[in-house]
Amino acid sequence: MGTRERLDAFLSRDWVRQLIIGVIIFNAIILGLETSQSLMAEFGPLIVALDSACLAFFVVEIALKLYARGGRFFRDGWSVFDLVIVAVALVPAGQALSALRALRILRVLRVISVAPRLRRVVEGFVTALPGMGSVFLLMAIIFYIGAVIATKLFAADFPDWFGTLGRSGYTLFQIMTLESWSMGIVRPVMDVHPWAWAFFLPFILITTFAVVNLLVGLIVNSMQDAHHAENEESTNTYRDDVLARLAAMEAKLDKLGDDTKR
Amino acid sequence: MGTRERLDAFLSRDWVRQLIIGVIIFNAIILGLETSQSLMAEFGPLIVALDSACLAFFVVEIALKLYARGGRFFRDGWSVFDLVIVAVALVPAGQALSALRALRILRVLRVISVAPRLRRVVEGFVTALPGMGSVFLLMAIIFYIGAVIATKLFAADFPDWFGTLGRSGYTLFQIMTLESWSMGIVRPVMDVHPWAWAFFLPFILITTFAVVNLLVGLIVNSMQDAHHAENEESTNTYRDDVLARLAAMEAKLDKLGDDTKR
Amino acid sequence: MGTRERLDAFLSRDWVRQLIIGVIIFNAIILGLETSQSLMAEFGPLIVALDSACLAFFVVEIALKLYARGGRFFRDGWSVFDLVIVAVALVPAGQALSALRALRILRVLRVISVAPRLRRVVEGFVTALPGMGSVFLLMAIIFYIGAVIATKLFAADFPDWFGTLGRSGYTLFQIMTLESWSMGIVRPVMDVHPWAWAFFLPFILITTFAVVNLLVGLIVNSMQDAHHAENEESTNTYRDDVLARLAAMEAKLDKLGDDTKR
Amino acid sequence: MGTRERLDAFLSRDWVRQLIIGVIIFNAIILGLETSQSLMAEFGPLIVALDSACLAFFVVEIALKLYARGGRFFRDGWSVFDLVIVAVALVPAGQALSALRALRILRVLRVISVAPRLRRVVEGFVTALPGMGSVFLLMAIIFYIGAVIATKLFAADFPDWFGTLGRSGYTLFQIMTLESWSMGIVRPVMDVHPWAWAFFLPFILITTFAVVNLLVGLIVNSMQDAHHAENEESTNTYRDDVLARLAAMEAKLDKLGDDTKR
Repeated sequence: MGTRERLDAFLSRDWVRQLIIGVIIFNAIILGLETSQSLMAEFGPLIVALDSACLAFFVVEIALKLYARGGRFFRDGWSVFDLVIVAVALVPAGQALSALRALRILRVLRVISVAPRLRRVVEGFVTALPGMGSVFLLMAIIFYIGAVIATKLFAADFPDWFGTLGRSGYTLFQIMTLESWSMGIVRPVMDVHPWAWAFFLPFILITTFAVVNLLVGLIVNSMQDAHHAENEESTNTYRDDVLARLAAMEAKLDKLGDDTKR
Repeated sequence: MGTRERLDAFLSRDWVRQLIIGVIIFNAIILGLETSQSLMAEFGPLIVALDSACLAFFVVEIALKLYARGGRFFRDGWSVFDLVIVAVALVPAGQALSALRALRILRVLRVISVAPRLRRVVEGFVTALPGMGSVFLLMAIIFYIGAVIATKLFAADFPDWFGTLGRSGYTLFQIMTLESWSMGIVRPVMDVHPWAWAFFLPFILITTFAVVNLLVGLIVNSMQDAHHAENEESTNTYRDDVLARLAAMEAKLDKLGDDTKR
Repeated sequence: MGTRERLDAFLSRDWVRQLIIGVIIFNAIILGLETSQSLMAEFGPLIVALDSACLAFFVVEIALKLYARGGRFFRDGWSVFDLVIVAVALVPAGQALSALRALRILRVLRVISVAPRLRRVVEGFVTALPGMGSVFLLMAIIFYIGAVIATKLFAADFPDWFGTLGRSGYTLFQIMTLESWSMGIVRPVMDVHPWAWAFFLPFILITTFAVVNLLVGLIVNSMQDAHHAENEESTNTYRDDVLARLAAMEAKLDKLGDDTKR
Repeated sequence: MGTRERLDAFLSRDWVRQLIIGVIIFNAIILGLETSQSLMAEFGPLIVALDSACLAFFVVEIALKLYARGGRFFRDGWSVFDLVIVAVALVPAGQALSALRALRILRVLRVISVAPRLRRVVEGFVTALPGMGSVFLLMAIIFYIGAVIATKLFAADFPDWFGTLGRSGYTLFQIMTLESWSMGIVRPVMDVHPWAWAFFLPFILITTFAVVNLLVGLIVNSMQDAHHAENEESTNTYRDDVLARLAAMEAKLDKLGDDTKR
């Protein structure tokens, strides 16, 4: 067994994985403390140092994994996920963009790739997505059409809500979630364009109906799968069993009939 | 094969359909660019010209289809859908009504009639509707009753919300979506009519219960259908198989019994 | 066949029922027109006269039904429903209470008792209720507890929202529907009682979880019933069939065995 | 039978349990009356005395149960629940903390532990929780990450909403419930940070998708269980029956074949 194999086996040991989870959680707490101004004023340097230590730990871990697995590393989606998350944390080390600095907390997501139960939940989410592809595409088309119409009709009077395609899209998303759609948006619009409801009510009905259909499709699919996984196998073995036995008995009966006649 | 048949076959070819989808998407982008004032100021004539070119393409395509299929054209719902959408785009060419001009973007909906996967989703939506007819009718009755009562009781004090049947209907729809129902509408109404909650709370409970029932009905129906499509056939062939074999064996047994007795 | 039987048969004829539905719809339109002030100013007496005519028609119809069916009339829930609705319409004829006058539109609900399809939907709603009894009782207990706690804690500072048990109950219902719960209610309360979230967040989680459970229970029950109604019967006849045939074959085999031995 | 056994049997009698339920309901009404200032002004001492009497009744009942069951008392979760609820009511008897006094109404929850039907509903809720553990954990991680990012980015400009981790968590919970998320929170934030939607929209999509998944999982699980409990047993006995009969018939056929040959 070469060095690489032994290193890979070492990284997959239970206590190593638990150590990694521990460091992730410790890092999460450190990054949480960093949001407190009073704590930063007193223990700032210590907190920053501990965060750097955690980051160094992750860099070493990923580097070792990369060395141990070589090309295989990039074939595992979760490993690439880990790499990207740690890389994102390295980029803003230059302190240039405070927005990017905030993304360092995304390192906590690594706990998902390490804990198998969480991993399964996320994989369940992701595998549910393709089945909803057509409905998502349809929603995108409806939103695009809605945004173009809303921008054409209302941009002049309500530039904040419908000034550009992007703003119209955002406002239509808000309307789809039903947040302040009437008192906040549609009633003021109707004061200027009395027939605006003829655009917004169908939009609400169609999008919520599409969302409901997404939900129903999701439920039916999960149910199918659950049903399958559980029943199908036992039912099929039972049916094959019955048919095989019946065929065997029929053959014996035929033989018996021939014997009796003779 | 006459000209018509050959034309029809040509229009159904894969690369022709992909060309049509391409033109639809290109047209969608053009119509999106048209919403930007800065772009229109600079490239206005070009954008309008490209839009007209797309429209011309669609008119020719529909005309060819109409010629190729003749009467059959009108028997296919999706073809009529295409015709109406392109016709709508032609009407406001007179630039009279800006509202109608905005509807030209509806041409993007043609992508649904051309892409089979989107078509299936929409057909799924539409076939789900009749099963919900009774509940929709019931909802309409409840809304009508609610609108008449609300108008009678609150029109004098809150003309903006309940002044006419139409306004009451709109406000009740807003209340059904739970948007600002209490802080925005019912609390102000209760300041004048302290017992107004005795009208609004039952209305909310009944309509949301009806919506939930719609949802449940939809889920149960889809589940039934999915179950059917999948299981029923294999179960039925299996059962028929077992019963046929049992009947055959019984007949043979009877014959064997007769042979033995003799 | 006595007069009563002949009258009952007459009232159940198709064209009589369609006439009744027609009068109900006509009455609904009349009552809708009554909400328009301009129409009332011009055609007021005519509209009121037509409404009275419809009411007279219903009174006669109910009286005939009552005579035709006698005691059986009160054993049918829908007949009693019709009677109460028409009676409610008669009470405020004294024009005393305008609120009660508004309830005359409830007569439109009679269309439900006459149209079989709508009747089935409502019966479906009503039969779903008892199964949810325990959860409703639990919700009532949670609301009562929540209202008492909220009144005790917040009545002094927010008399409009939590001044009495009734007001607290209404506000908690609003919070359960998630309408303005945070910006409208909980944030202002937290300005005075910083720990108020410790009461409201659990309340929201518990009540929405209970509502979700209601929904899930409803879906599962409907699914069970649908599954039953459809599958159970054919499955049971198939199974009985198979078992009976197997038993018959075994008996014949036994007899055959005895015959052969002898 | 010792005193303890006899006492336990006495406490489990139907009329004793109904008496306890009666006292709980009576106590609930008393505590409800206590919220009315006018009633307290007139009958204050009486109401307080009746409440104390109810509390004394509960203390005696719990003490008797504790004596009767001894160690077994603490092994029943519902008994401990009763003990804690009554103990909570005793603590604030010192009138020190009015907030704790308000919790005395929690005594009404005892009705759940005494009424079997309510008990079953709550046990159903509680048993549903572990299956959702992973999703809850994932939600907690997402909320923690979201709170840290939001605090880092927006604490300086919106201290009321995102000043600390706790405030950010509360605000993100509000956003997840879709309450005023756009008009109340995100639009004002976007006035300062135009790209804020790139944080909030994904947050909304991910959390609502997770909630939907929770719901779907719940429905599928309940359905599975209901399906199992109902079908599995009868299907299994039927299948075992068929296979046993087929095996028996085959054995008889073999024997018959041997007899005929001989």
